[in-house]
Amino acid sequence: MIVAVDAAGGDYYPKNPVEGALQAVEENSELTVLLFGPEDQVNKELANHDYDTQRVLVHDAPQVIGMEESPAQAVKTKQQSSIVVGVGLHKAGKCDAFVSAGNTGALLAASMFGLGKLKGVLRPTIASYFPTIKGFRLLVDAGANLEIKPEAAVQFAKMGQIYCQQILKIDNPKVGLLNVGEEEGKGTDLLKEIHAELKNHDNFVGNVEGKDILPGKADVFLCDGLVGNIVLKFGESIPEIVQQMIGGAVKEMGLSKEEVGQIQKVLHTALSSFNYENVGGIPFLGVNGVSIVGHGGSSPLAIKNMIKSAVQTVENDVNGKIVASLN
Amino acid sequence: MIVAVDAAGGDYYPKNPVEGALQAVEENSELTVLLFGPEDQVNKELANHDYDTQRVLVHDAPQVIGMEESPAQAVKTKQQSSIVVGVGLHKAGKCDAFVSAGNTGALLAASMFGLGKLKGVLRPTIASYFPTIKGFRLLVDAGANLEIKPEAAVQFAKMGQIYCQQILKIDNPKVGLLNVGEEEGKGTDLLKEIHAELKNHDNFVGNVEGKDILPGKADVFLCDGLVGNIVLKFGESIPEIVQQMIGGAVKEMGLSKEEVGQIQKVLHTALSSFNYENVGGIPFLGVNGVSIVGHGGSSPLAIKNMIKSAVQTVENDVNGKIVASLN
Repeated sequence: MIVAVDAAGGDYYPKNPVEGALQAVEENSELTVLLFGPEDQVNKELANHDYDTQRVLVHDAPQVIGMEESPAQAVKTKQQSSIVVGVGLHKAGKCDAFVSAGNTGALLAASMFGLGKLKGVLRPTIASYFPTIKGFRLLVDAGANLEIKPEAAVQFAKMGQIYCQQILKIDNPKVGLLNVGEEEGKGTDLLKEIHAELKNHDNFVGNVEGKDILPGKADVFLCDGLVGNIVLKFGESIPEIVQQMIGGAVKEMGLSKEEVGQIQKVLHTALSSFNYENVGGIPFLGVNGVSIVGHGGSSPLAIKNMIKSAVQTVENDVNGKIVASLN
Repeated sequence: MIVAVDAAGGDYYPKNPVEGALQAVEENSELTVLLFGPEDQVNKELANHDYDTQRVLVHDAPQVIGMEESPAQAVKTKQQSSIVVGVGLHKAGKCDAFVSAGNTGALLAASMFGLGKLKGVLRPTIASYFPTIKGFRLLVDAGANLEIKPEAAVQFAKMGQIYCQQILKIDNPKVGLLNVGEEEGKGTDLLKEIHAELKNHDNFVGNVEGKDILPGKADVFLCDGLVGNIVLKFGESIPEIVQQMIGGAVKEMGLSKEEVGQIQKVLHTALSSFNYENVGGIPFLGVNGVSIVGHGGSSPLAIKNMIKSAVQTVENDVNGKIVASLN
């Protein structure tokens, strides 16, 4: 099992990708990692660590795609970047998966054009993890397809269910269509069409509303990428805001240092289910390969878990199961 | 100043609407309330209270529209309901505003058809309050128009700004367009068109993302009713979920009764900025009248504040200012 890791992606490269990769190798004796990035920088970081040189390899990719660069432009002009080189070698079969905490749009573009689509897939999708009171669930599409057609939506639902089953280990994952009301006739004409297409689909629980997300009423929340992206980023902003609000309340109430410490501990435990480090990355579903992207701020732990997801995706043959379900 | 109050709307009628109306009358000596609902029920509730009989009047409306009834159907078939009768009398100039904690869709339909549109308005909109770290701001459209056209979007922005200024008392309210990224070229073709239309508009801060809502990066968050409704209901679900998560953490950590009590107090203070009771209701902007709807679960305090908003809307001539800004 060889997982390629973007060592020139994210806000803390090469440090965090390298550390995460080394942790992954230590945990899984079957794993080899291939670090893509400017060779000198990656080797310099590696020199700070002890590791199995047989299972940690470096592949030079001198160009770096910035987090704010225009994806299409970057992929076109930076052919020697970690993302373009790494995805190219994945396509050529030199590695089993590619993971990155870098520019999401660039990785999506490189994966779409470089890897192509799985047989029968109309459009690949980004399936984002979303925290609920029951644990992480999936929000599909999270921004790759701002508008969706009913046939593609049904495929997103199927791909999301397979990922939920194989990676999140949820039996019979339920699909809910994000809408403005529960009743069948609710929403735009497009949502009504999607509802009609999904009606006879296994485990479709019908329309769900914004208030049903955090309680985890479905396992796969289906929506277009516009709604998905807005809801995803909104959700990610909650822990910080809750901390600020509690901080404000604590100040207002004039609590003692010990009391504040206690409350911080409670808050830390309570908000841990919002911690994306524990899942590490979000997959592009429907591409002919395994391509996973993480937050720019990914910690070594997040990178390690991203690599773990990639391994599980390969080992459980998620792509084979997607092809079988669509054809 | 006469405000009509739906005494047959919401989950706790006639009790909460009647109590809220009496509180409003007590607070404002210039105010008369007109309670619409089944006369016997309303009078029975009034009998529990002392009040100024000159300024609290009852108008019989024997039919009740349920919270789950189909709005169009209900408005058509229940001509003797509080909503239809009340809006009709508002149209006829017998009262200055109508407030209800009842069926939102029914009140919207009755207001659209019964009151008509203000001069120059393409489409009325629901402008919902939304909690941010800076206090309540506006989310427009919150579900009345699932799809919007650029010209209507610009009007929504203007109407939202006027309401923000006059009722929320925010100087120079900023308008942000909810989108998948900050850059000008982001989003669907429709969002790009709306962006172009708004570009030369006063106080337009450009695209904002899901993560910008809770920090209050704009004062008017502009979006279509599909996004608005999903985000609104998602936001409303946060306090309950945060309480559950903190409850879980407290259990896990085995805290003492005193410690738990302390944390509950902190949480109560921290989450108070999410408390919709303090704002009370959301206005339909663009209709030729003042029509405000509140949560089904509105408390007497929420009803009182809804009536207060209605009074301010009339006193500040929000509708006159909308007409002036659009024509």
